[in-house]
Amino acid sequence: MKKTLIALAAVAAVSAASAQVTLSGGVRAAMQNSGVAGAETIVSGNDVSVNNLTFTASEDIGGGMVITGSYTMRNNLMTGEVSSGQDATTVAAGNANWRNTSIQLSGPFGAVKAGRFGLSGLFAYDPFGATGAIATYASGAYSGGRYNNMIQYTTPNMSGFDAVLGVTIDGVAANEDGRWMILNFNQGPMSARIYSETGLGTVLTQYTTSGAGASYNLGVATAMVGYSTTKVQATSAATAEYYTIGGTVPFGSATAKIAYHRNTVASADTVAFGVDYALSKTSGLFADIAKLSANANPTWQIGIQKAF
Amino acid sequence: MKKTLIALAAVAAVSAASAQVTLSGGVRAAMQNSGVAGAETIVSGNDVSVNNLTFTASEDIGGGMVITGSYTMRNNLMTGEVSSGQDATTVAAGNANWRNTSIQLSGPFGAVKAGRFGLSGLFAYDPFGATGAIATYASGAYSGGRYNNMIQYTTPNMSGFDAVLGVTIDGVAANEDGRWMILNFNQGPMSARIYSETGLGTVLTQYTTSGAGASYNLGVATAMVGYSTTKVQATSAATAEYYTIGGTVPFGSATAKIAYHRNTVASADTVAFGVDYALSKTSGLFADIAKLSANANPTWQIGIQKAF
Amino acid sequence: MKKTLIALAAVAAVSAASAQVTLSGGVRAAMQNSGVAGAETIVSGNDVSVNNLTFTASEDIGGGMVITGSYTMRNNLMTGEVSSGQDATTVAAGNANWRNTSIQLSGPFGAVKAGRFGLSGLFAYDPFGATGAIATYASGAYSGGRYNNMIQYTTPNMSGFDAVLGVTIDGVAANEDGRWMILNFNQGPMSARIYSETGLGTVLTQYTTSGAGASYNLGVATAMVGYSTTKVQATSAATAEYYTIGGTVPFGSATAKIAYHRNTVASADTVAFGVDYALSKTSGLFADIAKLSANANPTWQIGIQKAF
Repeated sequence: MKKTLIALAAVAAVSAASAQVTLSGGVRAAMQNSGVAGAETIVSGNDVSVNNLTFTASEDIGGGMVITGSYTMRNNLMTGEVSSGQDATTVAAGNANWRNTSIQLSGPFGAVKAGRFGLSGLFAYDPFGATGAIATYASGAYSGGRYNNMIQYTTPNMSGFDAVLGVTIDGVAANEDGRWMILNFNQGPMSARIYSETGLGTVLTQYTTSGAGASYNLGVATAMVGYSTTKVQATSAATAEYYTIGGTVPFGSATAKIAYHRNTVASADTVAFGVDYALSKTSGLFADIAKLSANANPTWQIGIQKAF
Repeated sequence: MKKTLIALAAVAAVSAASAQVTLSGGVRAAMQNSGVAGAETIVSGNDVSVNNLTFTASEDIGGGMVITGSYTMRNNLMTGEVSSGQDATTVAAGNANWRNTSIQLSGPFGAVKAGRFGLSGLFAYDPFGATGAIATYASGAYSGGRYNNMIQYTTPNMSGFDAVLGVTIDGVAANEDGRWMILNFNQGPMSARIYSETGLGTVLTQYTTSGAGASYNLGVATAMVGYSTTKVQATSAATAEYYTIGGTVPFGSATAKIAYHRNTVASADTVAFGVDYALSKTSGLFADIAKLSANANPTWQIGIQKAF
Repeated sequence: MKKTLIALAAVAAVSAASAQVTLSGGVRAAMQNSGVAGAETIVSGNDVSVNNLTFTASEDIGGGMVITGSYTMRNNLMTGEVSSGQDATTVAAGNANWRNTSIQLSGPFGAVKAGRFGLSGLFAYDPFGATGAIATYASGAYSGGRYNNMIQYTTPNMSGFDAVLGVTIDGVAANEDGRWMILNFNQGPMSARIYSETGLGTVLTQYTTSGAGASYNLGVATAMVGYSTTKVQATSAATAEYYTIGGTVPFGSATAKIAYHRNTVASADTVAFGVDYALSKTSGLFADIAKLSANANPTWQIGIQKAF
């Protein structure tokens, strides 16, 4: 019964080469313990980045130009709730639904994108990324912001470089508009990013966060470094300053991950080690353990995930 | 991840043919200014009619009969919120999700449809339709209502005519039931509609709205006229009375739009001019400008949209 | 995370048969009367079990193992609202969305499933199931519970038998964790289930419900029996005790349904009779009538539904 996509293919076949809708997403769950003294081990959705459902429609309109529309919903696999990433004071009850929504026109000139969507931050330079109980960059500068009424321009790739410039334009005087500038370099084994973002984000204080990250694929391993700082704009007081070093090492279907992370403002550090094991190209197991200086006990998670 | 529907169709093709689900929708964004004195120009989702996601399942059960189920969600592309079109006092917090939901059985006898869905109003006879900052019929009678617990009968097409009759049956004594009657004529270049609707709509006062619209495709242009009035049922006081005249003129990939609109109750009028430019069968640019007598400055919008 | 998605997309492009996403669900509506004295006949969505939208991704990862992710949303076809099945006191306003969400790994060892999902209860042994105005088991023990942070193990099928064992592990001290044990037998014409569940469910009192059901397909008819009782755990006071006997009889495209149901705690009984008529493999009409001893008038419903 659940015959789904026949119809769409049939439609797509008769109508000219028009839109193509793709449905993607993922599910993830783990047994985990936060490491806080007395914390119970729980069954957790473990992260909201994998647990998503995304609808994307992309159309080549000729002249090297592509129009793309996208809706992404992030889900809590353990409660059935969605997380729109919006501050509770800014959304009408019952309406927050999509985490990322956008329309983009890309072409030889680069790409212009409007909507509400998450900025990339520096997660790409963290071996543990934005995932689960052990997210060494879990708070502060490494995690990019998300705003209403965004418009963003990305340059074409030039010798491995591209730049991203964006602002929010919402007409609300009480909001100081968000703005961001990102410089990316990706060529061969090398990847690097310089990142600067100013805005309200999901907290109602204007802040500026800036930093940089880099990774280099040595073949037997990929090394990663990063630095980031966040300051309250009104006072220039730093709320976080992170240093990170780490890497990943592939062993067949497995990938070992290691990271050391220090927040100088909180005088806190994290040492983390983990292994990802691929069950297929889109699914896998993971087992991670970390010691946060702030916690009495180790933080750990053992789980499974599947992207689709 | 990201499996195109076409790829899935290959999988689905082996199972017996049963239901067909289609996934459609759209995205739209614009730079716009409302024209109100002091209003800032913003990046906007611009309208909720294009920004939707729709799931439709349709099945031919033989004898000329088709069963169709449909779910439509309208989205704010700039905030990630959904708009269910329900009065805030009538929905439980956190539950309003779908704007239109229905099941329909159609056949030689016509069509019977039950659910919650928007009535057509007279938007079809407005060159600017239900879109964006410049919706000449934006409020009042031209915008059809939407109710809970609707049931509607549509006659078969007879020489270009069909009639739509519907009521709401919700068993709630405090609600005066909604009811509507629509007569459509569509043949060759001519389209016309007579419209009458009584109900609570999204405001909690019983009202009656009635009107008529017509369009004629002259080839070089399509002319449109419309009239509509809305009265509070208890007092017969008119809350709005609209006169509209306008048209569209195609120029290759472009379509020019012009409309004059007068609300005699508010002694307000609107002159609007705009151009749509098709980038493909399902995507395009638009640039519109209008002067509302109530506003100090012109209302304008420049944007892009894509249906899928 | 965008980066991850892009990487996965590239992977998906080269891999032939990886994940398969299916989109399924249904729509249902009826004219119905509850039979309560003075109750008005209404147009109703009639049940939330058929009115759903479900996204399922399933992947064979070799070795007889399959990973499955699933998201299910239940909809009210007459109001556009969703029902997450969560207690209003336990969800943040605006966030409750999915009714069932899970990830499952199955293989020769059985199946392990984590997430939030409904337990099966004993609906399979009720000719009227979980549907509509006439749900003879509508409340209490026959309706399985639903929890946050569930983890469940199902044994492989052994000579027709399988067992299901599960707990909730949410780390919240105020919640007494849910737990359930289900023994199923299905072979040839015989189906039976022994069911026991303890937990908070959607009411905030810890209860234990247990029971058993069986059905036997005689060819000309299928006979069904069931028994179930629910007790408040703190006091052992029974809140419900149900006895049920019934059956279904196929006549070509039609299926007659009959059931007698008694709740000894409430000294209430129900006699129900109905007919389902298949319009296709996935759509049909239904007409049911019942007399509940508690109601002045008969309960009835006439409607149409379509699964997709």
